[in-house]
Amino acid sequence: MKTLLLIGMGAGDPEHITVQAIEALNRASVFFVLDKGPITQDLVRLRLEICQRYIRNPAYRVVQVNDPKRDSATASYTAGVEHWHAQRAEVYARLIDSELADGACGAFLLWGEPGLYDSTLRILERVREQGSSAFDYHVIPGISSVQALAARHRIPLNGIGQPIRITTGRQLCADDLDNVVVMLDAQCAFEAFVDEDLDIYWGAYLGTADEILIAGKLRDVCAQIKQAREQARQRKGWVMDTYVLRRRSP
Amino acid sequence: MKTLLLIGMGAGDPEHITVQAIEALNRASVFFVLDKGPITQDLVRLRLEICQRYIRNPAYRVVQVNDPKRDSATASYTAGVEHWHAQRAEVYARLIDSELADGACGAFLLWGEPGLYDSTLRILERVREQGSSAFDYHVIPGISSVQALAARHRIPLNGIGQPIRITTGRQLCADDLDNVVVMLDAQCAFEAFVDEDLDIYWGAYLGTADEILIAGKLRDVCAQIKQAREQARQRKGWVMDTYVLRRRSP
Repeated sequence: MKTLLLIGMGAGDPEHITVQAIEALNRASVFFVLDKGPITQDLVRLRLEICQRYIRNPAYRVVQVNDPKRDSATASYTAGVEHWHAQRAEVYARLIDSELADGACGAFLLWGEPGLYDSTLRILERVREQGSSAFDYHVIPGISSVQALAARHRIPLNGIGQPIRITTGRQLCADDLDNVVVMLDAQCAFEAFVDEDLDIYWGAYLGTADEILIAGKLRDVCAQIKQAREQARQRKGWVMDTYVLRRRSP
Repeated sequence: MKTLLLIGMGAGDPEHITVQAIEALNRASVFFVLDKGPITQDLVRLRLEICQRYIRNPAYRVVQVNDPKRDSATASYTAGVEHWHAQRAEVYARLIDSELADGACGAFLLWGEPGLYDSTLRILERVREQGSSAFDYHVIPGISSVQALAARHRIPLNGIGQPIRITTGRQLCADDLDNVVVMLDAQCAFEAFVDEDLDIYWGAYLGTADEILIAGKLRDVCAQIKQAREQARQRKGWVMDTYVLRRRSP
């Protein structure tokens, strides 16, 4: 039996890593690193730095894989993701087959929390259902960008006794505005709500040396966030950001 | 200036702690531990074990405080919490005043994620507004029981591209049932939805030696969860549990 570990490595700060994740890093002999586009270089380097910092025995292998591109021309978003998952499942099955000996332990190094907007878990489940490789797997939770954001802005995520919604830029809607955490928003969806009486707590590259934090009344800081985001994106070639929108209490 | 650290220590497993939290533990010289009722003994002990395991210089002090009791007879839930926060703010102000020398660093050891259904951040902000003690504070994120639950059941928290709702037992309602994480549910609120076509992923004492995990169709495992929960509560004198409810996709 082969073993796979899905290791949450935190939001970017190498000190976000948990002791459980460090132990997991030290159990694995092969690390699978998948990334896409211009983000690759920076994030692969950051992952390798974390490996070097925390792995005691340097006799490990890193397998970098070209991630299949998601076809954004597909009819629906869900169909596009489904197709991309199927392609990824093929890649993962091949990796597990060819790069991992029987009895060996491999690991996927994941940013943030493996259960939060990360597809690896879903794809491995698909590989397992297809039955080509026999393996067991474990999930090691990690600090998400949501938590890094709340910590850096020193805000609670919830109102007293109130629910929390976490959503994507694509799904953000007017019903969410009392209190919502937004991830994966490439289009600055917050701008549509600039006339509402909202506070925004925004952060990019959380936990890294490039971290940018902006907070204030959405109306006052909307343009500043858009500009900071665009300048950073041009400078680094990619940007990852997260924010909380919250209606001002009367 | 005094410094306070709000340290997220993870969901119960001492290995959930992050390197950042370990560094924070080693920066503080005084630890404030507040707990309530029968939970106290177990959870205080577990925190002290974590301190002993990770703090390199044993010259630290632990200040245990009797937490003011929340008056559940107050007219509304929010008013009750408000009053309790005011009382807690007095206790915290006194602690910071009397137990922390100028220039010193104190820490609150918090379970889970300091931004998720924890009042410490809100109470410190209140103490600061009252202005009796001058201090700065920092938040160190921690693995929440939500993350521990998802990891142990090996489930993603979100549907593909879909939002996530985190709520309390008190606030759980029929609109949430597509996909919801429930915390702080002393009344088994899930039972009200036993006739819906739902899956439940339930866990108690997550990350500890007492951990219990149950998953299945809500209809099939509802009674089993209630029984396991009640037996554990009687045995240990307290129970903390978390669960995901999810509508079965057609």
